[in-house]
Amino acid sequence: MSLEEIKLEDLHMDSFLREKAGELSAAVGDGFAVNALSGGVDSSAVTMLGHRALGKRLKTYFIDNGIMRQDEPQQIVSLFASLGVTVELVDARKEFFTALKGLTDPEEKREAITQTFYKDVFGRLVRESGARHLLQGSIFTDVEETVAGIKRQHNILAQLGIDTQKVYGYNVLEPLIQLRKPAVRKVAEALGLPASIFSRPPFPGPALAARVIGEVTPERVETVRKATRIVEDALRDSGAFQYLAILHNDRVTGMRNGRRDYGQQIEIRCWNSTDARTGSPTRLPFEILEDLAGKIVGEVPGVVSVTYNITRKPPSTIEAI
Amino acid sequence: MSLEEIKLEDLHMDSFLREKAGELSAAVGDGFAVNALSGGVDSSAVTMLGHRALGKRLKTYFIDNGIMRQDEPQQIVSLFASLGVTVELVDARKEFFTALKGLTDPEEKREAITQTFYKDVFGRLVRESGARHLLQGSIFTDVEETVAGIKRQHNILAQLGIDTQKVYGYNVLEPLIQLRKPAVRKVAEALGLPASIFSRPPFPGPALAARVIGEVTPERVETVRKATRIVEDALRDSGAFQYLAILHNDRVTGMRNGRRDYGQQIEIRCWNSTDARTGSPTRLPFEILEDLAGKIVGEVPGVVSVTYNITRKPPSTIEAI
Repeated sequence: MSLEEIKLEDLHMDSFLREKAGELSAAVGDGFAVNALSGGVDSSAVTMLGHRALGKRLKTYFIDNGIMRQDEPQQIVSLFASLGVTVELVDARKEFFTALKGLTDPEEKREAITQTFYKDVFGRLVRESGARHLLQGSIFTDVEETVAGIKRQHNILAQLGIDTQKVYGYNVLEPLIQLRKPAVRKVAEALGLPASIFSRPPFPGPALAARVIGEVTPERVETVRKATRIVEDALRDSGAFQYLAILHNDRVTGMRNGRRDYGQQIEIRCWNSTDARTGSPTRLPFEILEDLAGKIVGEVPGVVSVTYNITRKPPSTIEAI
Repeated sequence: MSLEEIKLEDLHMDSFLREKAGELSAAVGDGFAVNALSGGVDSSAVTMLGHRALGKRLKTYFIDNGIMRQDEPQQIVSLFASLGVTVELVDARKEFFTALKGLTDPEEKREAITQTFYKDVFGRLVRESGARHLLQGSIFTDVEETVAGIKRQHNILAQLGIDTQKVYGYNVLEPLIQLRKPAVRKVAEALGLPASIFSRPPFPGPALAARVIGEVTPERVETVRKATRIVEDALRDSGAFQYLAILHNDRVTGMRNGRRDYGQQIEIRCWNSTDARTGSPTRLPFEILEDLAGKIVGEVPGVVSVTYNITRKPPSTIEAI
């Protein structure tokens, strides 16, 4: 498949969808494909495109890795069921947390998630299914950032020179690889997905593990999950490009009931951006910021301090790790 | 000396100054006292009060512990010279950094600074001087916070049951122990100190070591020193109660010249408060916040991300550690 960028203004939807469906169908032939749905716009678009192109030749899994947002696995599976697409929910929480145990380096954490996903969990599902083809929602920005060495995306393997056929035993198909995010959103909308999916803010591949500085344990994920729920509920209608909560590893002094409580800190980021390449902090009213901080220290056990990121990208990045 | 609080409205300046000068003179008798000046309002007021009461019976040191703000040691010594008070500048940077090496726990860092200050550096100066009396600028809030277990103040020894005469070989005199900060500012003004001192925002005893999460090295102090200079220059006229920069230990992803730069984060706090017991974040305009962040990532090597604290005190505290 071509790796040349298709700009939003050059995207002819009908012919694009027809062409990609044709490519997928030809690539899979009378074989069988699988894909993993995360609920993000990229993997959701690929799932719909894949089912349109392949019908029963595609089996879709939702892998609950334990680092998703609150109720996310069940909600996404239900949504696709309502669209006529059957998704199998796989509980792999134990495998991911076992792989993440003791790791604090961001690259090692990403690598553990990648390896657990591809080799252990998904590799096993693919082998058991007999499929030789994997659909993935990689987009043009993933390639750019990985090639530039900015961030190792979990879903870029071929671009890193890894022979997925040899290493993992299957072939990777990436029908969205020529598109940036705004074009992917148009594709998702054209494929009949609801606004909650096609307008959904980006969410990282390593999910909440990308929002935990330091070791990723079930307890620490639960802390950032609660904070994420509060931040997303408050900022859903803000018009911002992306908004997130990060659990820091550093401890700071707080006070509870008049005594010292050496506690945790949550950092909130809320970005204005059009394409994720550059960004600036959203100028949220202080009433909202203070209300957010009050809710987080009030409702998330162990958190005594909340900050708001005020740096531009670059030199910041959208996610912290 | 009494430990009962004197409220601001009950402070009769002339009689207070006369009474304290009399007490100091009587306590020192025909002996000799020393004190350490940090340039904060408390120690500055004590230095002026002490020189008024004791004249040549008081010797004042400024101990450069390496964790002061930019140019602070020289500026304070010059200011007091202009007020007719001779202050001896002592270079003890090496001793403090040696004591702090490898320590990351906030209490251990405070303890190392306390021990280096009292036992090693100041204890040696006192022994060499032959003085048996030490003047200190402890105030009422220090006693309260230490008793409540919120924070171990470096200058509270007698209150913790430490016999300073026995352990350190000298007697501690604390003429401001009955006052809270607003009253101390009035005393400083009445003693002829300039507004740059009597209106000066609070600064912690452990100086910039209290602004470094994790190990306190000369390099990390230099990083937070540069950020502190930028924050103080920008917020001096903000009307805020206190403003500060904190260097985190956590690393976050940034981008420099299109490549990943796994860098450091600075947290800014700027407090509205009247007495430091409760506080809320100052609602600074976003233009100022973004300008601050831009200056810090532009001028402080290694920093790629800046946050602003949006939590109320309590459960936050003014300082992070």
